[in-house]
Amino acid sequence: MTVKQLSLPDLAEACAGLGVRAVGLWRAPVHAYGVAATARLMRDAGLRVTTLCRGGFLTATDAGERAAALDDNRRAVDEAAALGTDTLVLVSGGLPAGSRDLYGARERIADALGVLGPYAREHGVRLAIEPLHPMYAADRCVVSTLAQALDLAERFPAEQVGVTVDTYHVWWDDRAPGEIARAGAGGRLHAFQLADWITPLPEGVLEGRGQLGDGSIDLRAWRGHVEAAGYGGPIEVELFNAGLWARDGREVLTETVERFRRHAMD
Amino acid sequence: MTVKQLSLPDLAEACAGLGVRAVGLWRAPVHAYGVAATARLMRDAGLRVTTLCRGGFLTATDAGERAAALDDNRRAVDEAAALGTDTLVLVSGGLPAGSRDLYGARERIADALGVLGPYAREHGVRLAIEPLHPMYAADRCVVSTLAQALDLAERFPAEQVGVTVDTYHVWWDDRAPGEIARAGAGGRLHAFQLADWITPLPEGVLEGRGQLGDGSIDLRAWRGHVEAAGYGGPIEVELFNAGLWARDGREVLTETVERFRRHAMD
Repeated sequence: MTVKQLSLPDLAEACAGLGVRAVGLWRAPVHAYGVAATARLMRDAGLRVTTLCRGGFLTATDAGERAAALDDNRRAVDEAAALGTDTLVLVSGGLPAGSRDLYGARERIADALGVLGPYAREHGVRLAIEPLHPMYAADRCVVSTLAQALDLAERFPAEQVGVTVDTYHVWWDDRAPGEIARAGAGGRLHAFQLADWITPLPEGVLEGRGQLGDGSIDLRAWRGHVEAAGYGGPIEVELFNAGLWARDGREVLTETVERFRRHAMD
Repeated sequence: MTVKQLSLPDLAEACAGLGVRAVGLWRAPVHAYGVAATARLMRDAGLRVTTLCRGGFLTATDAGERAAALDDNRRAVDEAAALGTDTLVLVSGGLPAGSRDLYGARERIADALGVLGPYAREHGVRLAIEPLHPMYAADRCVVSTLAQALDLAERFPAEQVGVTVDTYHVWWDDRAPGEIARAGAGGRLHAFQLADWITPLPEGVLEGRGQLGDGSIDLRAWRGHVEAAGYGGPIEVELFNAGLWARDGREVLTETVERFRRHAMD
């Protein structure tokens, strides 16, 4: 998503040229290119798929909408398995229109995980609940902290449900380092993503993530937290940024690799 | 601030006409009208001043800036006392330019409270740390949760330092009801403010608060939380909303009173 202006073949080629060996994919471009074709493309380029983004949106109250959401999430699990990744990132969903009941919405997520967890496990896929920054609580994700995400995840086996840690969403939270340790101890630290925090936030607050090093987040410290908790998996860089999307994708990817080396490596 | 388009005399008259008996004031209009003149105006209109907003911005590292901030906060205490309110709301301040050290910034706030708390107490004023929504952590307030605010406040006597609860800032936080109980038990629940949460957020995320009832927050439930914690003080409505400011101020005030009755009263 950091370089969504690149086609998947261009992405694969650019990654290979930069020594990037693994990549997280979003569903929309995978659907457009074809799931099997994407899997082949990545395999042929020597690229491992780290995670598939995203399942979720599990908070609807309407029965038809709930059934549709479960179906869509089963398809996302199938796609993840086909792409060879063991991790499906979940963005849980916001409040249904007119609702003010955050607690009820979180319980409906738990209900859905009870169905989707075993299905994912059967297909070799782990669900990774991603807490989103509290500014998205109403319209995108009622799970706003790692503590909330783990409270949900821990109702299910760790092989079924864990969490995603994204620095953009948790950096302000003084409890997050402790919750990362809790997640690691429970074998639930399933994905780790980097983005920096810059201001002012744009209207709608969706496309204002900062390039690594441009903002307020001590990225190296957060990498230290997850590694101290036993995380040895891939580190994704996920930048939703209209300015980056307007530039040449290969240039942005090159810059991102350089920023990663400078701000997130030892 | 909800009707900042009204002059202070017009505000006082409009409040009296609507049966509003108390009002929270911001410093800038008070300075413009004169502190003593404002105090007289409010007294003559039979209006109690609930709180003065705002002191704070205590995170600077530069010695000169820190001294200036302390001076400014002492003046704010003096003004609060002159206006007859016992509560000065504090917005703690964001990260200094180039800093990524949230923990250090929070410690500098504690250092400043150690100076300002006794000064305020001598003047019959309590400092009320307001946690701001985590979306302001970088540029306005490194204190993002009630738990963090109370961790700071509890280093000092309750007569010196407590907290402000604003629904806009805490509504997403499942720990907040418990922290409200903690604040109440400690005698640190010094102010309570209402605003609703609406989306999409505007650029800069400062002027997008919702009129009561327009958004996702169960205002009556939060009122219940503070009252269950022993809060019996005034309830302020603080709406930063460019749309409301563009309308006739008396009309907005009338609407706000009606919305308060409908969405926040029994």
